[in-house]
Amino acid sequence: MATMRAVQIAQRGGPLQLVELPIPEPGPEQVRIRVEACGVCHGEMVAIEGHHPHMVYPRVPGHEVIGVIDKLGDGVAGWNVGERVGVGWMGGHGEVTGLTQDGGYAEYMVAYIDGLARVPDGLEAKAAAPLMCAGNTVFTALRSSMARPGDLVAIGGIGGLGHLAVQYARKAGYRVAAVSRGRDKEELAKSLGADVYIDAKADDPGAVLRELGGARAALATAPNAASIRQLFEGLAPGGELIIVAGSGEPIDISAAEMLGGKRAMRGWTAGPAADSEATIRFSLLTNVVPMIETFPLERAQEALDKMLNADVRFRAVLSMA
Amino acid sequence: MATMRAVQIAQRGGPLQLVELPIPEPGPEQVRIRVEACGVCHGEMVAIEGHHPHMVYPRVPGHEVIGVIDKLGDGVAGWNVGERVGVGWMGGHGEVTGLTQDGGYAEYMVAYIDGLARVPDGLEAKAAAPLMCAGNTVFTALRSSMARPGDLVAIGGIGGLGHLAVQYARKAGYRVAAVSRGRDKEELAKSLGADVYIDAKADDPGAVLRELGGARAALATAPNAASIRQLFEGLAPGGELIIVAGSGEPIDISAAEMLGGKRAMRGWTAGPAADSEATIRFSLLTNVVPMIETFPLERAQEALDKMLNADVRFRAVLSMA
Amino acid sequence: MATMRAVQIAQRGGPLQLVELPIPEPGPEQVRIRVEACGVCHGEMVAIEGHHPHMVYPRVPGHEVIGVIDKLGDGVAGWNVGERVGVGWMGGHGEVTGLTQDGGYAEYMVAYIDGLARVPDGLEAKAAAPLMCAGNTVFTALRSSMARPGDLVAIGGIGGLGHLAVQYARKAGYRVAAVSRGRDKEELAKSLGADVYIDAKADDPGAVLRELGGARAALATAPNAASIRQLFEGLAPGGELIIVAGSGEPIDISAAEMLGGKRAMRGWTAGPAADSEATIRFSLLTNVVPMIETFPLERAQEALDKMLNADVRFRAVLSMA
Amino acid sequence: MATMRAVQIAQRGGPLQLVELPIPEPGPEQVRIRVEACGVCHGEMVAIEGHHPHMVYPRVPGHEVIGVIDKLGDGVAGWNVGERVGVGWMGGHGEVTGLTQDGGYAEYMVAYIDGLARVPDGLEAKAAAPLMCAGNTVFTALRSSMARPGDLVAIGGIGGLGHLAVQYARKAGYRVAAVSRGRDKEELAKSLGADVYIDAKADDPGAVLRELGGARAALATAPNAASIRQLFEGLAPGGELIIVAGSGEPIDISAAEMLGGKRAMRGWTAGPAADSEATIRFSLLTNVVPMIETFPLERAQEALDKMLNADVRFRAVLSMA
Repeated sequence: MATMRAVQIAQRGGPLQLVELPIPEPGPEQVRIRVEACGVCHGEMVAIEGHHPHMVYPRVPGHEVIGVIDKLGDGVAGWNVGERVGVGWMGGHGEVTGLTQDGGYAEYMVAYIDGLARVPDGLEAKAAAPLMCAGNTVFTALRSSMARPGDLVAIGGIGGLGHLAVQYARKAGYRVAAVSRGRDKEELAKSLGADVYIDAKADDPGAVLRELGGARAALATAPNAASIRQLFEGLAPGGELIIVAGSGEPIDISAAEMLGGKRAMRGWTAGPAADSEATIRFSLLTNVVPMIETFPLERAQEALDKMLNADVRFRAVLSMA
Repeated sequence: MATMRAVQIAQRGGPLQLVELPIPEPGPEQVRIRVEACGVCHGEMVAIEGHHPHMVYPRVPGHEVIGVIDKLGDGVAGWNVGERVGVGWMGGHGEVTGLTQDGGYAEYMVAYIDGLARVPDGLEAKAAAPLMCAGNTVFTALRSSMARPGDLVAIGGIGGLGHLAVQYARKAGYRVAAVSRGRDKEELAKSLGADVYIDAKADDPGAVLRELGGARAALATAPNAASIRQLFEGLAPGGELIIVAGSGEPIDISAAEMLGGKRAMRGWTAGPAADSEATIRFSLLTNVVPMIETFPLERAQEALDKMLNADVRFRAVLSMA
Repeated sequence: MATMRAVQIAQRGGPLQLVELPIPEPGPEQVRIRVEACGVCHGEMVAIEGHHPHMVYPRVPGHEVIGVIDKLGDGVAGWNVGERVGVGWMGGHGEVTGLTQDGGYAEYMVAYIDGLARVPDGLEAKAAAPLMCAGNTVFTALRSSMARPGDLVAIGGIGGLGHLAVQYARKAGYRVAAVSRGRDKEELAKSLGADVYIDAKADDPGAVLRELGGARAALATAPNAASIRQLFEGLAPGGELIIVAGSGEPIDISAAEMLGGKRAMRGWTAGPAADSEATIRFSLLTNVVPMIETFPLERAQEALDKMLNADVRFRAVLSMA
Repeated sequence: MATMRAVQIAQRGGPLQLVELPIPEPGPEQVRIRVEACGVCHGEMVAIEGHHPHMVYPRVPGHEVIGVIDKLGDGVAGWNVGERVGVGWMGGHGEVTGLTQDGGYAEYMVAYIDGLARVPDGLEAKAAAPLMCAGNTVFTALRSSMARPGDLVAIGGIGGLGHLAVQYARKAGYRVAAVSRGRDKEELAKSLGADVYIDAKADDPGAVLRELGGARAALATAPNAASIRQLFEGLAPGGELIIVAGSGEPIDISAAEMLGGKRAMRGWTAGPAADSEATIRFSLLTNVVPMIETFPLERAQEALDKMLNADVRFRAVLSMA
């Protein structure tokens, strides 16, 4: 039986282990993908911590997968061997990639066809991988917002999600205020397209945003309640805060504060394959490129640790090439 | 000089005092209204507590005003003496009725014409009054929501706002779940149009709502964080909680909880005169009627106290007739 | 081999013929349905006239199907034998019921599970059938419109679609103006919930609607350009005309007329199974019931002819019971 | 009495005549503006042809006005002498600039303050003028559309409106297909930001757009029915055609064609002062600049004639400096 190299979570709590596994066979309405690259995402912690009710171990994590179709399951139409595809968090047929079925920390994986995004050539696998979840999340969050071209949009946090959000926001014609801590990120933020940089160490982001007229939408990519609150305070009347990353810490905002100015807050996560395709199309159209550090499969644990410590600029990707 | 009876807040903190004042003269783009009825609203506490930056004492409160135009100011076109009108919180020209200008706890008041709502005959003044703020708030909140006819909508609290919201929601074709504490409100809630009644003393509203499929929208009319949380937990994925009354107490909901199911929360307050007209039109079209207790002007303090103690069924109205 | 009675279109142009066919077997992701009732719809003419590129004869028409699951295909989960279901125009897996696959003019049919709507007990099969296409079309058209509760909505035509639309519009809280030709439909229209009846023989519908303030949305259920134009002329500024039935006749409206008042027109057709479920839910919640005439399977041609001649009140249904 | 130079329409049908008029005095809630530049727009034909019910001659046309506040009327607050402002078609207080009140083909004009847009320094008056109507129209049309960043948007016509629409669409992150007649406009269209150019002389725009996946929105800036039809045929399912210029010629599209794919059409015209401000903000943010030819006031008739003959590239502006 042919085998492949893969990284597994053997049991709740981890760690990630390099293992030899049989190359999986695609079932009906599935394809097998030869994985080229797989992004490393905070979502992996859900698999490691095992919070999901359908979690079973051992499990291969990874839901930012780019690869090439290698074999078709029974009854698959409309997809061809050799075609370039991506798989994100929503794996099709109700599955969650890397959680209820094995994901992309491996040389091969199988996926349902309703979970497949078509990936054009001319986009490097390792650059495309983070678009399947991180890119999808922030692009669709912005696209779903009430903000219209020319409106002020605040992006809180310049990390894996934020450095993409700043680019997308600028290319979608928003006036972009990037909010982070310290002066060292100002140059980067502006090179990514921020019109304004707000140093949350030196200034009160809410006050600065209000002086600029208030944000029509603010995207919170940093998961702590304090920075969420700062963005909320910078909203224009009728503005909305979109939370794309969050801890279990209660939000320190009162009902009375939401009433004042009819302000809104909502959570947002990555959408299905069609949204990944839209994200890729927009990224190619407007030259949005994720900044990544690549790691070989055997260094998956290191990649994850660095990502969790915010020690990658700005997204870690496992490269199987 | 002709005088009138009015109720004033002499200084921050109150109390309400019956006084004799000169009948006011309308300025340019204003009319004078002979007041027939004025609702008593929690908003009066903003005037009494003086939180507004433009608050000046003494001040006549009251922003649920129904009356008849008595005199036109200079340059007023399109309005006639004898015409029936209403005035709400947004008093036109940027003024807040009963706060930055004198309101309707009086026999006469003046108002800017861009703050006037036309009120058809055949609607009693005292029944129309609560529609100018309480009705306007909950009707436009529902109208602004993502919920569409047939969707499950939860109304939290059966009081001044809630007893109107249940009626509006049912008449707009929603499936209505009313949430309150105790069995005694069940019959009333159902007679107002609730399809389901949830007794928050006996059952967990979030769990019951989720069993019903989850609320597409929930309206929180009771201002405490605990009941806001219960409604939030009953939202369907993609659902939204609309807060129309709230204290300064922080909301006990985490960012992670909003991410799960992409749930949303937003604050909502009454809209301008055109929204009051829409509220009145819909109320007449579908026979929505507020339940009220009337008080003469000299018992304004008692009316306010009873309202604050939730001791009126369900809205107090001062009647000048 | 077990057989069933069915009505077929043998070739382009018809006619409908009663035949004996083998009872079909469900394939993967399909179920077999024992049909209880099937509505008769203008859409049948697409099958008879063979305009669809994937049309193959012979073909069993019918896309307003209510029945009971009789057998499960391979790999079907989440559906049970004995469960009550409906099938509409969108048959799942990209199929069009009664067009690219056999439909419901038969004792049995097979259908993909992603095309199935769950149908609660307590709703008669023959009353539920027209909701799968006629009801779905007009309910979702109204639900998709910009009109909000209390707004004026015009329904043009009181036939198979229109008599449902008037009911839905009223139960969704609109102010409803029904437009038809002749005084004889006035009483019916009002009994269905119309607030206003406009006799297009006696009055100019556009002028009457504009006097009422203009329609925020108008639903054109009668397919001729003249009546479409009349509704368009009755739109309020920013209003929209939704066309749910139409011929190939060019619309006699100019670009300049659309510019004036920023008016809109759009086409609308029935949505997928989830929309049929929403239609049924709303119909049950608010007591909307189609008016039907039932026919046995062998009188399918007569039923179709009468429907095309507007000689049924108001929807024809084949009953297999 | 101080006088000024102005261009008037003396009677229905024109022509434009240079005249000496008294410098007007601002009334209550008005300011007087020293005009710096005024765009020349097709809307002038409404004034010349006198179709408007409130048209009175003689009249000074012109509704793309940029200038400096020169004098304040009684009771004006919030505006200062020396401040830079613009006035568009919607002149405030329900007036139409250049139609129901005198417009900007003059050295001075008066305007209501609710019709004033604030115009930042650093934008030349003659470049800002066309943004008050042409820019406002196409920018807000795109902003109002269902198209989201990355979607295909077609712009029909590369003239006064179209050359701005191509720029706005590209800067708002759409994939832009420009449609015009002849190869000579290809280079220009691409330099303005078009991703695709479709020569309607050589190719069928509908077919080309459908091959690209279909347009989510199409903007028709050329007013003939044939080109409107071509864009309609290029819409994606659910797509919408927005008409911003149109003749009285009936649209050659049938109801059946709108039903197929649930396609929509709507008219759009310029919005009020706040929309002009948004247009200017976006233009400055993203470097959108109108291409203009300037004329002195005395050559107003020539400017208008050239504009009507599509003989300016691409917008004529009267410069009073």
